[in-house]
Amino acid sequence: MSIYSPSIEKLIESFEKLPSIGHKTAVRLAFHMLDLNKEDTDEFIKSIIDAKTKLKYCSNCFNISDTDPCPICSSPKRDASTICVVEDVRDIMAMERTHEFKGVYHVLHGTISPMNGIGPDDIKIKELVQKIGDNNINEIIIATNPRVEGEATAIYLSKILRPFGVKVTRIAHGIPVGGDLEYTDEVTLTKALEGRREL
Amino acid sequence: MSIYSPSIEKLIESFEKLPSIGHKTAVRLAFHMLDLNKEDTDEFIKSIIDAKTKLKYCSNCFNISDTDPCPICSSPKRDASTICVVEDVRDIMAMERTHEFKGVYHVLHGTISPMNGIGPDDIKIKELVQKIGDNNINEIIIATNPRVEGEATAIYLSKILRPFGVKVTRIAHGIPVGGDLEYTDEVTLTKALEGRREL
Repeated sequence: MSIYSPSIEKLIESFEKLPSIGHKTAVRLAFHMLDLNKEDTDEFIKSIIDAKTKLKYCSNCFNISDTDPCPICSSPKRDASTICVVEDVRDIMAMERTHEFKGVYHVLHGTISPMNGIGPDDIKIKELVQKIGDNNINEIIIATNPRVEGEATAIYLSKILRPFGVKVTRIAHGIPVGGDLEYTDEVTLTKALEGRREL
Repeated sequence: MSIYSPSIEKLIESFEKLPSIGHKTAVRLAFHMLDLNKEDTDEFIKSIIDAKTKLKYCSNCFNISDTDPCPICSSPKRDASTICVVEDVRDIMAMERTHEFKGVYHVLHGTISPMNGIGPDDIKIKELVQKIGDNNINEIIIATNPRVEGEATAIYLSKILRPFGVKVTRIAHGIPVGGDLEYTDEVTLTKALEGRREL
């Protein structure tokens, strides 16, 4: 006989399937769910259903949004001639938190990764190329993650974008602010040296 | 303008309301939810609805269960003459994991806590007393938590149960297995000394 009743067992399992939720947290969440009143439970479920049904991809930049085009693409305050290319929707959020970037985005939804069978055609590269052909673009900032796949994608993009005569830049890699030289790995330190700027 | 679209903002908020989920985990869970296919989402939602609708309290021991009486109370293998009194349903799960206890339970659903305005009538004490009056009970094991409220509740219970001539015991407090004398607080050590047993 299982320790828990089937319904609570199922609920715990559901929570356990979520990322970064272990068994103990799943038990805590399941019992919290049972303690919630009907209103709060309904609101929780509604927020999931709403997000799943209302959210769609922006047809221009492939950000997720309640509207198409997304608020960033449709904002007159944003400079549509500067495109920041990111791997994932969450990277837009990270960039937006800086309040520094005033251009628009293009979400690749992945990186080129031959190991996982993901080629250039499997991510939103042709849509980016098409955008550049169609519009008056000043600069493409490639902000893929500084990992093997992200670097490979950046190099690939810079090669296929070069013929368009558009300025292609890559965000700087180096020691993070508050970081410590002593604990910085050699690859990052090499990048930091390479990317040094005159004071 | 918020960084996120309203629907995803709402979903993140929903997850943030759950215990032990911070903002970053809530964002991760929300995006995980968006990545789920319809089937998995429906299953997640169904597990919540099922748990909320199917689970009820066992009318005998106040455990939560899909059935009434609960599997423990209705099992012929359990010794109904030994009742383990616990504060919360989760304490039953903890006891069951030991595979040592073969009696039945009684869940108080709280502890006497004058500070929080919780008196003996606000928790399932009269139901316990009635059970003892009605049945042939050998022993009541009080397994409330070794905190102020749990101790007070244990003392209160032992007083009101004494007239029934039933054996009332309290689970042992002492140094946990694998614990360290050096790091054990003085109250626990005092309890460990008091509860010493002949070898």
